[in-house]
Amino acid sequence: MIGLLTSAESDRLSVVLVSTRNPLNIGAAARAMSNFGFHSLRVVNPYALAFEDAKSAVGASSILARAGNFESVADAVADCALVVGTTAVRDRHLHHTLHRAEKAGQLIRKRLKTARVALLFGSEKRGLSNDDLSHCHWLLRIPTVDENISMNLGQAVAICLYELIRQSKAPRAGDKPALASAGETERITAMLIDALEASGFLDLRRVSDSELRIRRLVRRLHLPARDAVMWLGMFRQIAWKLEGGQK
Amino acid sequence: MIGLLTSAESDRLSVVLVSTRNPLNIGAAARAMSNFGFHSLRVVNPYALAFEDAKSAVGASSILARAGNFESVADAVADCALVVGTTAVRDRHLHHTLHRAEKAGQLIRKRLKTARVALLFGSEKRGLSNDDLSHCHWLLRIPTVDENISMNLGQAVAICLYELIRQSKAPRAGDKPALASAGETERITAMLIDALEASGFLDLRRVSDSELRIRRLVRRLHLPARDAVMWLGMFRQIAWKLEGGQK
Repeated sequence: MIGLLTSAESDRLSVVLVSTRNPLNIGAAARAMSNFGFHSLRVVNPYALAFEDAKSAVGASSILARAGNFESVADAVADCALVVGTTAVRDRHLHHTLHRAEKAGQLIRKRLKTARVALLFGSEKRGLSNDDLSHCHWLLRIPTVDENISMNLGQAVAICLYELIRQSKAPRAGDKPALASAGETERITAMLIDALEASGFLDLRRVSDSELRIRRLVRRLHLPARDAVMWLGMFRQIAWKLEGGQK
Repeated sequence: MIGLLTSAESDRLSVVLVSTRNPLNIGAAARAMSNFGFHSLRVVNPYALAFEDAKSAVGASSILARAGNFESVADAVADCALVVGTTAVRDRHLHHTLHRAEKAGQLIRKRLKTARVALLFGSEKRGLSNDDLSHCHWLLRIPTVDENISMNLGQAVAICLYELIRQSKAPRAGDKPALASAGETERITAMLIDALEASGFLDLRRVSDSELRIRRLVRRLHLPARDAVMWLGMFRQIAWKLEGGQK
């Protein structure tokens, strides 16, 4: 323990690199994780051979050897109760709450006491896509000057992890209830979308990204873990009935 | 001004790279400076052509174009009232006071109010030499785990600069999204109960207080005000369809 996190808490964090193109950046992310005591690296659709090339990075070999390779963001975050996206922009994603890194670090540390957290970084060129973002509960922004908001990926990862371990006198806020995992939340979302489709709701609102909107809507609820089974059961029953189920 | 420093204060800081070997690291240092609003880069004895090669780095060209190239540390820090060296090790330099980055940031910010400060980074392989260190007033250490204290140079620069600009006081806990009113929440609850009744869900769970349970369940969501109309619309459509509505 070098700062604010116990090793059990550090172990609950996964760094998720989505569509990373440059193996040097995967290596740099792993190296910063190693410096700050984090071990769970997950990559989603890394560019071509970037992931294999990265495995030669200095001082991070065990992290890279054990890194998970996932086909979708949903799979990569399924066991996490909090999913945080990183972004450079200030105003594009109005559907998400945006926290500066300092505040985000506080919130993430609090959640790591009891639950798994995923921290997502997008590709070097485009960052996280709207689809990636729809899996996030809120977004983290590293404060930069307006003239150059685009950070190097390896440096952004290092700063986020440093923010998690550095000492601060942040006062503890009240304990919040444990939240549903990303997997549970996604199952609930899928069932709700089924019900909305069967009810004709989605036909009435023909927008191209209606599924993403619903996904964000459900993420904004911050569903308590204790209620996840109940919500899933309610939406399942409703969808079943709407689809013509008979008792 | 993005954090704790005014631009006049930021302008008083020089990042000094001593004997850097890899042009990518010079570029990465300049990029982080650009992100956080620092402009004075000085290099001392960069390795061969590393400095020239670095000038192509992304998003940092003006900093690199104006960077000073010095033959000695003494020359590079001559106009600075405080000279801070960076080191990974904890105990080698007993002749110097060693501060963690969090504390060092505080001390450096204080000096930047009135005086120039130099922040020195050594070569990738050996760090700062004893000769380099003899020019320093004290040393800064980024807190890392014992198993891997060696940081990437570009990441170390980024973290030190972030430490200088980040907000130090714990941010206010507030800034939560506005929540739906009790009236809206109750209308949403009522519509959900209608849908659950029509779906047969409530028949399957014959408990005397099922309505109260659903009401508590919805209250625990802390529905955002901005989403209230959407949730009401979704449940209304579902209930209407379940009750035999036709379009």
